Amino acid sequence: MYELGVVYRNIQRTDRETADALAALGSATVHEAMGRVGLLKPCMRPIFSGAQVSGTAVTVLLHPGDNWMMHVVAEQIQPGDVVVAAITAECTDGYFGDLLATSFQARGARALVIDAGVRDVKTLKEMNFPVWSKAISSKGTIKATLGSVNIPVVCAGMWVTPGDVIVADDDGVVCVPRAKAAATLDAARKREANEGEKRDKLASGVLGLDMYKMREPLAAAGLKYID
Amino acid sequence: MYELGVVYRNIQRTDRETADALAALGSATVHEAMGRVGLLKPCMRPIFSGAQVSGTAVTVLLHPGDNWMMHVVAEQIQPGDVVVAAITAECTDGYFGDLLATSFQARGARALVIDAGVRDVKTLKEMNFPVWSKAISSKGTIKATLGSVNIPVVCAGMWVTPGDVIVADDDGVVCVPRAKAAATLDAARKREANEGEKRDKLASGVLGLDMYKMREPLAAAGLKYID
Amino acid sequence: MYELGVVYRNIQRTDRETADALAALGSATVHEAMGRVGLLKPCMRPIFSGAQVSGTAVTVLLHPGDNWMMHVVAEQIQPGDVVVAAITAECTDGYFGDLLATSFQARGARALVIDAGVRDVKTLKEMNFPVWSKAISSKGTIKATLGSVNIPVVCAGMWVTPGDVIVADDDGVVCVPRAKAAATLDAARKREANEGEKRDKLASGVLGLDMYKMREPLAAAGLKYID
Amino acid sequence: MYELGVVYRNIQRTDRETADALAALGSATVHEAMGRVGLLKPCMRPIFSGAQVSGTAVTVLLHPGDNWMMHVVAEQIQPGDVVVAAITAECTDGYFGDLLATSFQARGARALVIDAGVRDVKTLKEMNFPVWSKAISSKGTIKATLGSVNIPVVCAGMWVTPGDVIVADDDGVVCVPRAKAAATLDAARKREANEGEKRDKLASGVLGLDMYKMREPLAAAGLKYID
Amino acid sequence: MYELGVVYRNIQRTDRETADALAALGSATVHEAMGRVGLLKPCMRPIFSGAQVSGTAVTVLLHPGDNWMMHVVAEQIQPGDVVVAAITAECTDGYFGDLLATSFQARGARALVIDAGVRDVKTLKEMNFPVWSKAISSKGTIKATLGSVNIPVVCAGMWVTPGDVIVADDDGVVCVPRAKAAATLDAARKREANEGEKRDKLASGVLGLDMYKMREPLAAAGLKYID
Amino acid sequence: MYELGVVYRNIQRTDRETADALAALGSATVHEAMGRVGLLKPCMRPIFSGAQVSGTAVTVLLHPGDNWMMHVVAEQIQPGDVVVAAITAECTDGYFGDLLATSFQARGARALVIDAGVRDVKTLKEMNFPVWSKAISSKGTIKATLGSVNIPVVCAGMWVTPGDVIVADDDGVVCVPRAKAAATLDAARKREANEGEKRDKLASGVLGLDMYKMREPLAAAGLKYID
Repeated sequence: MYELGVVYRNIQRTDRETADALAALGSATVHEAMGRVGLLKPCMRPIFSGAQVSGTAVTVLLHPGDNWMMHVVAEQIQPGDVVVAAITAECTDGYFGDLLATSFQARGARALVIDAGVRDVKTLKEMNFPVWSKAISSKGTIKATLGSVNIPVVCAGMWVTPGDVIVADDDGVVCVPRAKAAATLDAARKREANEGEKRDKLASGVLGLDMYKMREPLAAAGLKYID
Repeated sequence: MYELGVVYRNIQRTDRETADALAALGSATVHEAMGRVGLLKPCMRPIFSGAQVSGTAVTVLLHPGDNWMMHVVAEQIQPGDVVVAAITAECTDGYFGDLLATSFQARGARALVIDAGVRDVKTLKEMNFPVWSKAISSKGTIKATLGSVNIPVVCAGMWVTPGDVIVADDDGVVCVPRAKAAATLDAARKREANEGEKRDKLASGVLGLDMYKMREPLAAAGLKYID
Repeated sequence: MYELGVVYRNIQRTDRETADALAALGSATVHEAMGRVGLLKPCMRPIFSGAQVSGTAVTVLLHPGDNWMMHVVAEQIQPGDVVVAAITAECTDGYFGDLLATSFQARGARALVIDAGVRDVKTLKEMNFPVWSKAISSKGTIKATLGSVNIPVVCAGMWVTPGDVIVADDDGVVCVPRAKAAATLDAARKREANEGEKRDKLASGVLGLDMYKMREPLAAAGLKYID
Repeated sequence: MYELGVVYRNIQRTDRETADALAALGSATVHEAMGRVGLLKPCMRPIFSGAQVSGTAVTVLLHPGDNWMMHVVAEQIQPGDVVVAAITAECTDGYFGDLLATSFQARGARALVIDAGVRDVKTLKEMNFPVWSKAISSKGTIKATLGSVNIPVVCAGMWVTPGDVIVADDDGVVCVPRAKAAATLDAARKREANEGEKRDKLASGVLGLDMYKMREPLAAAGLKYID
Repeated sequence: MYELGVVYRNIQRTDRETADALAALGSATVHEAMGRVGLLKPCMRPIFSGAQVSGTAVTVLLHPGDNWMMHVVAEQIQPGDVVVAAITAECTDGYFGDLLATSFQARGARALVIDAGVRDVKTLKEMNFPVWSKAISSKGTIKATLGSVNIPVVCAGMWVTPGDVIVADDDGVVCVPRAKAAATLDAARKREANEGEKRDKLASGVLGLDMYKMREPLAAAGLKYID
Repeated sequence: MYELGVVYRNIQRTDRETADALAALGSATVHEAMGRVGLLKPCMRPIFSGAQVSGTAVTVLLHPGDNWMMHVVAEQIQPGDVVVAAITAECTDGYFGDLLATSFQARGARALVIDAGVRDVKTLKEMNFPVWSKAISSKGTIKATLGSVNIPVVCAGMWVTPGDVIVADDDGVVCVPRAKAAATLDAARKREANEGEKRDKLASGVLGLDMYKMREPLAAAGLKYID
């Protein structure tokens, strides 16, 4: 259950170097490196394609149809942060548009991840401010009820703690806990390292069946070929 | 309940100047200017991004899987109109493709808003004929049952009366009743007018908290900062 | 019901010329030419727009969260094939990424149609390897359970038999049975042939009402015009 | 678009006798008698089975998460009314529970039809106060924003004008416009009248193919029997 | 792809004894006995609880909003059959009500499985005619277009061939191919046979961990207990 | 992010008396008493109506299509517990049936709350073992992959920590954090206390408008009555 009406000003962010290095590896590789956990639901889609970011999470909890706390979280943004917005119930309203994006960008935010809707998407694209959301909607919001800033939240089915690393690209959004960030970076780099060699082999026509030595386990599992 | 089998030839369109001027303000600003009503459901998405139009609504009511009335509505189009198509039950079939688009465009239609599916989207994009729909589908339709043209319809959850103004862009589709169009245009322009100044302030790092004088009401609501 | 754990190596593919010729006609025209059947559900969307392909189906049946058989099907691909992947239950996981795409492309596959998710979509676009799927997701899969290759499968609500022709473009995906491919190509070409003339007429302002001689049947059905 | 902040006290209700008589015919027969229009979306389900009611509509427009106007509409209820509640945006919150039901029932309301959620369903069943809704949810609402009472509303995709007749049973909810109520009652009774005879014939083994003389039109349409 | 406009009169039904015996085992056990395949999507729900049936499939393919072929399939029903109805596109209309149910029941049908909606559910329950469907809707259908009877169909994601066995209960609907019916019955009875003993053990407090000897494989997989 | 492969044996349960007392107040009242937070998504529905329980949460994290950990969690159940099952990705498979229910009941579990499917629902009802789930499905699961027991989990959008109180009834499921359980019980009892008096007033015809003194704030907000 959520603590309402509080703003935590001092959060422990993942160290900058680690947080920044994860972007290049991408959400799929990072998610694999953590053991296939940490992914937000696939309904979270980028409002424009091609963006690939990582950053430290500052979180905000909002109520349906009410974006008051968006202004509160803006003040807590530090350069290199990604704002993660959760809502206390299902909502597709447009919580965020070009004015808030201008403010977030001025504070150094790299992106917004929100389990609701956004608007002014044409302008957001021109500003190159990426957003991952589950909806796009012109529907505006009011400013009436307190939520919280920098408490742990559930966003699109995933638990996000302030200071965790968010990695987002065209494939989706993954959350890397601060305590696992360094190890995840290591593991992800190892996965990445030998992908080039694999790609070359596969491009030359070598089959995964042979490269991964799958023929024997497949036969053991009972696979039959019929001519 | 709908009146079936009728075509109203004389509808009262919103005056052209007002209808045309709303496009530039965009669906989000217009929707705000009306008091946050008038928006079609966010499942209505553009088939290509970047289009931003406004125009006077001519309406058509169709049956599931039957696009016969699309040809009837074509004749009622005047330059500057936007066709708004409602279906009597849920359907995602492709009611509209490049041939109908050619006809609509020749008559002066600016766009189609349809609570169903369309097809030939690659060609529609090349023709620069924008459509907002809830689906894209190759599935064709038959021509067997009468609907109506230029009766009031419910499209994607919103009541649209012939002659109303439709404003549509990447953020969604909003319907402005004829009787409110002039006042809405005024209100929307006022909202727009002071956005530039706000954007400059926010870009310079001023917080919404201060610009909108939110600190006091937030404190009054009980917001606590924790270090 | 599905036969599990088998790979059929010899399938009867639709002849190459017919299979290849269907691409240019597009999914909507081909689906119409078959009598408005054969279409996969409209939730199947391209991961990037603009691709338009046809090819002979090789099929693979997978289990939720398990892409082991993707490597098995790779070996059965011949140049000009389209891989059609069905899952035994609802799943949005990312079964397919850039490495598998490299292998599929090396074997001559033209596209993947999958009733689940894929990942590495930015790279797939750079590789120009088109995919039609119902989801995009970073979520990885395991390699544990046998499915089958080249058995008839249900993919997105449509029955696909190995060797059928798959036609896919921005409007969706259609399956043409091998036995109907030649006749469908004929019928589709006839539809296409007189579209140019129709388009010219409509562009000049002629109404479908007149071109298709609809005024009389509409009146017979009881359509009333009200001034 | 909706007029906000108004309560219409004097509405023209369908005459009581007609409104009451429609219940016994059921939503399916009434909907057929109107020419297959007037039905709310099938997501509207009864919270308990077996209720079958009709009554005159009093309408209320609410905002997401806000049930303030429920108390305003209560005062406008007259014996024999059915309250029809529309929401300005998608919401599944529990707008209505046993206290409001006690008040509605005391005023003579027969049922609630709401395009959102309700709660206390066990108690509502004990009170025998039927509700058709699209959700059941414990989630409470606030009382902060004005909607309207007795304006025309869109509820679950259907236009409802105050004073129309609502017919609801296990099959769904249908709205009969006041101007069509008498004719619809007549038509529905005629449909009903010869159903008993049909049922007896069908129960004795006579086929609909023969009873409805379908064999000839089916053959004309090209139906082939294969032994 | 479907063959349209045909009725196959002679289908090979699974032998009566086997088809009838599967009901008692239930959909879950039968589905397990087949190796966890054969299940229709879980959106298929019974219109009343408690029914548990099996029977031989006669199939019908219908178009959206058109139930003409329901009368055609009625004639092909033999005692002990279950009618399986597929639609060529998504539809929730009410294809089937008390009159058709009277006819089906008179012909000896045990149930209907339909990938769409039904109506008159209160009467169907009184008649004790079970239906598994994905919707309940008053919305009526027309009789205009030919489908087919007793062709293989895809119903709720599963391939059903005429003569297969359908097993349906509160847990869902499973299709057992004719060629596998006898073996499936055997396997299902074996599963069932030792369930009583297991239930007694578990009821006495023995853990599945011990009864199924799971502790060792769990430890081998790396499970750690923390006090 | 989740810790995988661990079982926490010693959790701090909310004291028994408090946990037990919350059942009688129901999910709606308890949720209100917490300030309208703590509710799981309304897709969580009881498999039979009328059950009303509360208990201390033991949690289990499962993988899609794999119920191995259900046997592990069984051993950790103490009398008065409610098992809360979360899945690492969307899944509707039937993870739980009569055998597991027998074991859970023998260990003293009062209910299961699962963000997936269950089966054998007819037997579960006969056993009077209540389940809240988002699906019912015959589809079985495998036993192959480690999850965890008694870690904090996200279930149907809500964060549940082992030892929290779960309150579930026909209206839904709410989670009360252990630290707030006593205060919530107090607050809920206060809400409940004056409901009887309110109900009597409303039943006598007093309007909520007057009982809650809403006329003045409604007028202040601008509500207009029109005769």
